[in-house]
Amino acid sequence: MQPANWHNDCVAKVKDIESRLERLEQQLGVYQRVSRLMVRELSLADTLRAIAKLVQEFTHGDSCLLYLIDNDELVLCATNSPHAEFAGKGLVGKVRLRMDEGLTGWVARERKLLAISSDADKDPRFKRFSDLPEDYCEAFLSAPVIARNRVVGVINVHHRAAHRHSGAEMELLTTIGEQVGCLLVLARMAPTAIEEANHVELVMTHGHIAPRDADETGKG
Amino acid sequence: MQPANWHNDCVAKVKDIESRLERLEQQLGVYQRVSRLMVRELSLADTLRAIAKLVQEFTHGDSCLLYLIDNDELVLCATNSPHAEFAGKGLVGKVRLRMDEGLTGWVARERKLLAISSDADKDPRFKRFSDLPEDYCEAFLSAPVIARNRVVGVINVHHRAAHRHSGAEMELLTTIGEQVGCLLVLARMAPTAIEEANHVELVMTHGHIAPRDADETGKG
Repeated sequence: MQPANWHNDCVAKVKDIESRLERLEQQLGVYQRVSRLMVRELSLADTLRAIAKLVQEFTHGDSCLLYLIDNDELVLCATNSPHAEFAGKGLVGKVRLRMDEGLTGWVARERKLLAISSDADKDPRFKRFSDLPEDYCEAFLSAPVIARNRVVGVINVHHRAAHRHSGAEMELLTTIGEQVGCLLVLARMAPTAIEEANHVELVMTHGHIAPRDADETGKG
Repeated sequence: MQPANWHNDCVAKVKDIESRLERLEQQLGVYQRVSRLMVRELSLADTLRAIAKLVQEFTHGDSCLLYLIDNDELVLCATNSPHAEFAGKGLVGKVRLRMDEGLTGWVARERKLLAISSDADKDPRFKRFSDLPEDYCEAFLSAPVIARNRVVGVINVHHRAAHRHSGAEMELLTTIGEQVGCLLVLARMAPTAIEEANHVELVMTHGHIAPRDADETGKG
């Protein structure tokens, strides 16, 4: 190969790796900001909206919508977008899906990540709400929200244009689904419970996150 | 510059960025594994030990020790290392520090990250336990464990040799301190509480992670 080619190849390679580096830094930044939100004293609604915004920004999606399960229905509980919450629509808390409806219902039932890069709104499972501008989308990424190993909701990213989701986007939404699940559990604990809690005792008595058989924690 | 120099420079640059890329991928991997641990059904002791192991591996430290507060004392509750737990010593649950003792006590009181790259065991605040091989260290990195905006413990990384801590290591330990705090709160919730919980109601009633004044959540 000629030196000029080496040089061009090398510059192209540096550019490529630098853009991957930037993307990883953004992904780390999202995790770190979510972690900080989890220990801050914000209202749950504000925290969930802040997380939806972080996800939308990272994925460059047109919107991020969070549904939580209420009596076998999925209820829209937070969105990054002002459309659903403002403009006199007040859709948050109102939009409801049955668990057997839509792509969102499928994700909740199957507990699986779903990534559709184009024609998502032509999928027969898709349910459209004429009120939600977010619902006209080509690309759809959706992950279950997991609390204590149980699906408690679904988090979705919509792109109006076709979009091939990256591995980083899929990983991020999966992890955010878990972190939101933890956050919901945290929000149920009275703040005084922390002050009264004896965490040492909890660990030393082999405190289980959920019941299981005898373990081998190996403490002396 | 000569083509040969361009080439060498470029190769060196690629190597440098590739190693940063690898490091970021490792950091992301730790966050993702911790998140998965938070929703899995493992005993708390096992989960904390797994987290200490992940931190030790990421930092290439000689040990990672987790202390939790119990009645104004810091109690060693988990470690990556078999020394403290096996070898007939049974130090986990036994080693206790007063809040005004040692570097660990300082971190708990000040709620600050502490990074000492060399001569840590000569610091006048350092308290040595002859039983803990981990305590002969040159480098010491320590972050508070935060639950609901309150210090509930400290997590430490020890290097026997001098070690200049990277920004990534400091960031990681800070975030792990927050995630461990969340995990401790989660472990206190009975699993049935999740099944009975109405998360939608919690969000819609402006559920607060901790009390504060009226907010502007903007829902319709």
